[in-house]
Amino acid sequence: MLPPVSQLHYILNVSCPDQIGVVSAVTGHLTENACFVEESSDYGDPQTRQFFMRIRFRPTRPGFDPKAFMDGFAAIKDRLDLKLDLYERATRRKVVLMVSKLDHCLNDLLFRYRTGDIRMDIPAIISNHPDLQQLADWHDIPYHYIPVTADTKAEAEKRIEEVLEETQADTIVLARYMQILSASMAEKYHGRIINIHHSFLPGFKGARPYHRAHERGVKLIGATAHYVTADLDEGPIIEQQVERVEHFNSVSDMIAAGRDVECLTLARALRYHLEHRVFLNGNKTVVFRR
Amino acid sequence: MLPPVSQLHYILNVSCPDQIGVVSAVTGHLTENACFVEESSDYGDPQTRQFFMRIRFRPTRPGFDPKAFMDGFAAIKDRLDLKLDLYERATRRKVVLMVSKLDHCLNDLLFRYRTGDIRMDIPAIISNHPDLQQLADWHDIPYHYIPVTADTKAEAEKRIEEVLEETQADTIVLARYMQILSASMAEKYHGRIINIHHSFLPGFKGARPYHRAHERGVKLIGATAHYVTADLDEGPIIEQQVERVEHFNSVSDMIAAGRDVECLTLARALRYHLEHRVFLNGNKTVVFRR
Amino acid sequence: MLPPVSQLHYILNVSCPDQIGVVSAVTGHLTENACFVEESSDYGDPQTRQFFMRIRFRPTRPGFDPKAFMDGFAAIKDRLDLKLDLYERATRRKVVLMVSKLDHCLNDLLFRYRTGDIRMDIPAIISNHPDLQQLADWHDIPYHYIPVTADTKAEAEKRIEEVLEETQADTIVLARYMQILSASMAEKYHGRIINIHHSFLPGFKGARPYHRAHERGVKLIGATAHYVTADLDEGPIIEQQVERVEHFNSVSDMIAAGRDVECLTLARALRYHLEHRVFLNGNKTVVFRR
Amino acid sequence: MLPPVSQLHYILNVSCPDQIGVVSAVTGHLTENACFVEESSDYGDPQTRQFFMRIRFRPTRPGFDPKAFMDGFAAIKDRLDLKLDLYERATRRKVVLMVSKLDHCLNDLLFRYRTGDIRMDIPAIISNHPDLQQLADWHDIPYHYIPVTADTKAEAEKRIEEVLEETQADTIVLARYMQILSASMAEKYHGRIINIHHSFLPGFKGARPYHRAHERGVKLIGATAHYVTADLDEGPIIEQQVERVEHFNSVSDMIAAGRDVECLTLARALRYHLEHRVFLNGNKTVVFRR
Repeated sequence: MLPPVSQLHYILNVSCPDQIGVVSAVTGHLTENACFVEESSDYGDPQTRQFFMRIRFRPTRPGFDPKAFMDGFAAIKDRLDLKLDLYERATRRKVVLMVSKLDHCLNDLLFRYRTGDIRMDIPAIISNHPDLQQLADWHDIPYHYIPVTADTKAEAEKRIEEVLEETQADTIVLARYMQILSASMAEKYHGRIINIHHSFLPGFKGARPYHRAHERGVKLIGATAHYVTADLDEGPIIEQQVERVEHFNSVSDMIAAGRDVECLTLARALRYHLEHRVFLNGNKTVVFRR
Repeated sequence: MLPPVSQLHYILNVSCPDQIGVVSAVTGHLTENACFVEESSDYGDPQTRQFFMRIRFRPTRPGFDPKAFMDGFAAIKDRLDLKLDLYERATRRKVVLMVSKLDHCLNDLLFRYRTGDIRMDIPAIISNHPDLQQLADWHDIPYHYIPVTADTKAEAEKRIEEVLEETQADTIVLARYMQILSASMAEKYHGRIINIHHSFLPGFKGARPYHRAHERGVKLIGATAHYVTADLDEGPIIEQQVERVEHFNSVSDMIAAGRDVECLTLARALRYHLEHRVFLNGNKTVVFRR
Repeated sequence: MLPPVSQLHYILNVSCPDQIGVVSAVTGHLTENACFVEESSDYGDPQTRQFFMRIRFRPTRPGFDPKAFMDGFAAIKDRLDLKLDLYERATRRKVVLMVSKLDHCLNDLLFRYRTGDIRMDIPAIISNHPDLQQLADWHDIPYHYIPVTADTKAEAEKRIEEVLEETQADTIVLARYMQILSASMAEKYHGRIINIHHSFLPGFKGARPYHRAHERGVKLIGATAHYVTADLDEGPIIEQQVERVEHFNSVSDMIAAGRDVECLTLARALRYHLEHRVFLNGNKTVVFRR
Repeated sequence: MLPPVSQLHYILNVSCPDQIGVVSAVTGHLTENACFVEESSDYGDPQTRQFFMRIRFRPTRPGFDPKAFMDGFAAIKDRLDLKLDLYERATRRKVVLMVSKLDHCLNDLLFRYRTGDIRMDIPAIISNHPDLQQLADWHDIPYHYIPVTADTKAEAEKRIEEVLEETQADTIVLARYMQILSASMAEKYHGRIINIHHSFLPGFKGARPYHRAHERGVKLIGATAHYVTADLDEGPIIEQQVERVEHFNSVSDMIAAGRDVECLTLARALRYHLEHRVFLNGNKTVVFRR
């Protein structure tokens, strides 16, 4: 049995080359179908000439048929070269978390999952270490221990993909997963893998970044959440935050500050992603934060 | 002679009861008139049931006639109960600044005026003290010294209104003007007078607030920019910011921190206002910050 | 068997009327005892005329005897009217957490406890509801369900005090404990009970503060961690933080932002307290954050 | 005639290898000389093994003789290898500002100078462009236009040094001075030249950084104030701040945000420096912010 009409909410995401008439054409179709717009955001990028729109709406007529609704776009879709995606808002997206040994991001996400702060299903936790099994158990989430060595990397990735397929994972979160995914996997799940990593002012690449930031006396410890691309740590940024440190803070103080800011930054980025607020725009993103 | 078509940009602000079909009706009219949407934001408040939309657009057909364009809305305006305002984007709004003796906000605004950081005309500075005449002179802005005493308050306000009328002031900024405007003046310029005042966590009303905040050991000094209403310091909030202080900060340190945060907060609020990004929504505002 | 000399670290806290010669007298005693100062902070409040100093030091001579060391202060203690406290740094303080139904602060503190981010023992969790038993169980911490009604308030508080005494609780954290403690209990544990509550710019007292802040359109959601005194929510502030919200954020968004900022603020305040960085200074605190 | 004893305040800065007995020896000398400590901060860096202390004090006995006071340190100075500097607090330090065409930092510093927010003398403004002469004139500050070309660089720097010597400049602020100083000049004024530059998360070196940050979609625009060393933009950091931007912010929005954060960051760094709060500690700084 369907829920009453008024409780169904949809999210319609649109992207296309920027041009005259997109908003009127798309919203005209909504009006014809008696859909009430609850929230809408759009942005035309003057550089990339791409247009992005996210509309949350509620059908007000009984018997709304999503498929018929989308089929009805056919004419304007062709004319305006629209990319259209419709999501039922109440559907929980399936998110697989990948971790190594550090558990601050995992714990934070599991808490937000448990309390409903972030609405999602977590059908699996994957790790290259057995350490966090107990935390997964407590939340009743299957824990897949898939060790990775230089020799077994390809095979391990194959097992990871099997888990992703079996669980029909929609999104993958690298919650301090300390292995680099292959370029082919990054490509296959383009725009669906979110990573978190530390960031500093100025930046420090390579090993022991906190030690080097400490040697340099930086005052701000940051974190960047981004989509994973083949080019390590250079994918489209979704969210960034910083936390202040002082001269008397030790390396371990800085690492602790980094943990806090990583948790917050990743949680926000994931929420934006799951609510379909993030669009890829070349190597950038458009994030409709409202 | 008109500037070339492509250089004219307009801002169309719409508010109305929230309902099906507003966006499609409004943007449909834009499409029919070959207007290219450069930026748009909207928001339907589920509580007040009001809908707000701001559209920046550029006509692409020669001979765009703003009056005819607005007249063309007649039918949908009636049907949907729209409030519509059209602004030519390049028009500089006339802003009268009112000050007393403290000049940090005045100096900050004059700098942003001079550098074009905030685009506006400043046809007059009004003060109840002669102290800041020289600063006004350096910027070639007429300075109206209108002293206020308990006895002359009504008369002084009359002179203030004369200046506002002569200069065709669009917006009034109380940049640390330490007199309370009458309820009738607040009403007359409803939504057009912006005030800045200090704010704390928690709040302190009444005299010597910094001293009391200091006694209480607050850690955050804030500022609130808001529209002036008859109810002092209780008008719709446009912007708020905070700055951190510590136990070793003296009252004068806190006042200095307050100065910085007041400048930034007021400058932002004024920019949002001048760019037609702020809508009154009962005793709140909608601020399309993008 | 004692650990090697070099691994013993102490914290010496000093407060007294501000006067000439305090630092030299106190540090002179440290020098005579071959103690190496690792970290020191001090502050003389020009208003209250009180002086505060925190010194972390390491004895460098074998056989350091804390009691003899403190006894050695006798002469200068009398002359300068010193209040002196010595703490062995490695000693984990005993912290009892009190909660009701909301678990965001509890979960956050338990995570920081488990990972060692905050070093402490948690000998008991006390709640007036049974809801969070399972979370306590997972962390192997005894959960005391002590319901409170208007009639049983005095009796319940007696049972609470029994738990505090049995567990030799050093510090009590009200991690969203929604009952008001009696004035006598606030007094008995003066400077040892930490509470967290929401704060806004401007403040809203009374019921449904988030709803009222939402109606007023505030832009900043804050939290205040403070010591509990008989005067509800008016005790000395230890830490404050804020988080930004916008016009489109619902009341529940604001509550979620409040949860995040409450967790961070409480965790920081507790860490400062446990590291003996906080001094009461009238109705304010001195917090040596470094 | 000398001001009354109680109005003389001094700042004593001490640095030395970290060891037992520094604080007691230094403050013992203060006590013997009846000096009342108003504020003190210290820090021993566990990595560099250097100790730093800043003491603000007030002599309480008539006839305090600074030279005799400093001479009295001779024995402990040798024994503990102390570096000692005494400053009369009321002395205004001489700061020469160097600018090119961008005037946001200059305007901000001149405002803080005029209002006393930052206490200093500004005996000269030096620029490689004539553009900002009028702003200098209004503040009655001599403006030295010293153009720089590839051919005249050495000669121009000679003229700059002449101005610095004639004006007895204590500190030089590069307030958006777009020329690179020679290594020899950086060395000559080591720890006395402060520069401000933009910073991003992550960093972007080279030309058009805002454009590149915009292409990458960064969310945080920052600024770093640091001492100038021969290694461009890599000198010891004094202060850093950030400002948030979103996908819809244009390059010029980002540049405007950068201006604001540069002003604030530079003003803070300069104030810390002028109050003798900053110590060089290898390629880092110690900043006693209180």
